[in-house]
Amino acid sequence: MRGPTPSQGTLTQTASAPESCALALTLAYDGTGFAGFARQPDHRTVQGELERVLAIVLRRNIETAVAGRTDAGVHALGQVASFQWDGAAVDRRELLRSVNALVTEGIAVREIRRARAGFSARFDAVSREYRYRIVTGSVPPLFIKRVAWRIPRALDLEPMREAAAHLVGEHDFRSFCVSGSAEGKRTIRRVVSIDIGEEEHLGERCVVVKVIGNAFLHSMVRVIVGTLVEVGVGRRESAWAKEALIAQDRRAAGPTAPAQGLTLWSVGYRDEVWL
Amino acid sequence: MRGPTPSQGTLTQTASAPESCALALTLAYDGTGFAGFARQPDHRTVQGELERVLAIVLRRNIETAVAGRTDAGVHALGQVASFQWDGAAVDRRELLRSVNALVTEGIAVREIRRARAGFSARFDAVSREYRYRIVTGSVPPLFIKRVAWRIPRALDLEPMREAAAHLVGEHDFRSFCVSGSAEGKRTIRRVVSIDIGEEEHLGERCVVVKVIGNAFLHSMVRVIVGTLVEVGVGRRESAWAKEALIAQDRRAAGPTAPAQGLTLWSVGYRDEVWL
Repeated sequence: MRGPTPSQGTLTQTASAPESCALALTLAYDGTGFAGFARQPDHRTVQGELERVLAIVLRRNIETAVAGRTDAGVHALGQVASFQWDGAAVDRRELLRSVNALVTEGIAVREIRRARAGFSARFDAVSREYRYRIVTGSVPPLFIKRVAWRIPRALDLEPMREAAAHLVGEHDFRSFCVSGSAEGKRTIRRVVSIDIGEEEHLGERCVVVKVIGNAFLHSMVRVIVGTLVEVGVGRRESAWAKEALIAQDRRAAGPTAPAQGLTLWSVGYRDEVWL
Repeated sequence: MRGPTPSQGTLTQTASAPESCALALTLAYDGTGFAGFARQPDHRTVQGELERVLAIVLRRNIETAVAGRTDAGVHALGQVASFQWDGAAVDRRELLRSVNALVTEGIAVREIRRARAGFSARFDAVSREYRYRIVTGSVPPLFIKRVAWRIPRALDLEPMREAAAHLVGEHDFRSFCVSGSAEGKRTIRRVVSIDIGEEEHLGERCVVVKVIGNAFLHSMVRVIVGTLVEVGVGRRESAWAKEALIAQDRRAAGPTAPAQGLTLWSVGYRDEVWL
């Protein structure tokens, strides 16, 4: 963009010297009412809804690339979706307002950035952070209920941290993804860190598992959490996480934790991608 | 209670030497779906629902006293409701579980305490804290949406704090309550503190106004917040809050802020009321 866009009531206009670029939208969504992120015919999905609104506002068909294809029920605070843009000047503030005004309940665009031409929210992502919230005990959560998994038992965090330490690093995570989804695919991923602590939101306490990695297999964070919870409630020793990893068999790891506790928190890119 | 209650599958039993007392329930509720706290025929209210469940669990009619009669749409994290109890031994953990299992969605009992006979959650309360959340700016809140007021403009907190300082202390708050509701009633209340700051919950930022006082008139916190927001957006000077107070006329103060931003946070009692 060359200087501020004059406000003429139209969102886009052909600049004197069009410069191709990409636009990257940072998205939050409450996954409760969506059949996941990815566009699907006859299903309410985040991508389908976003592209529908972008087409109205920008008056052309838009196909987005996305950093994390979250499953049905999974939330996002910092999902990133991108699309190529031919260089027509666009007032990003106005675009953010228009999309937020038109988009269905449960989605919010938090930021719109310009990236170099060819940028892909998916392929240029260098790290992803997911957070998983768990509410323990006999008092049901009210205000954080939609974004947490409630388990009635207490969790012992120290053995969970020991178990998590076995999973940090570059490993074959075949045991930690939906069985069948990794057939014939590369299943090595690098987990940078797993931090487990307690937080309070809206007055309600929860255990939060923060997982940062370069990329994740299908349901990988949820299987990691399901495995750590087995250790936290005392059904398994912490060393079991290592055995599960080595087994390279989905049946060796714990159950898949429910979708509603999971949030795609943020996605990292190299600084040089932004214009 | 004299020692642990034997678990015999029944919740209550006649103790050998019954000792009258009161039971005090600390309640959270999401006010969205309720026509306020107070029991009303043909309306879904928190008190109506709570007393219905207590009658089932305790097998007798229960009439509760309450610390704060919150309006429709107002939330609570630490509301307190109490009732007299004839001294039959009661397993409070089990009572908490049973009530939470039976009560409708949107209410949670967080704690059950024993108080001396004659205790009233209303008349023995010595302080009440309310918190009001406001989300500003062009990005709509998602995860804290149900418990915050969204205003598209920015708030300047410093003049709001100056305005709030005029309201702290013992004053006649006639200007700050629903007009008509105070006819012929004493309208002097003591506001202990008003703190205004920023917080982050579930990844979303909000301005929080925390008001502590001995007791409050009908809608008083919401009129205080509505008045402070007029100052925060720059429509009024901070000294206007003082003029509004002195006027003793509802029309002199700001608008009533919406119910959904307000939460009854906690209620204070003297230590000696608890058994």
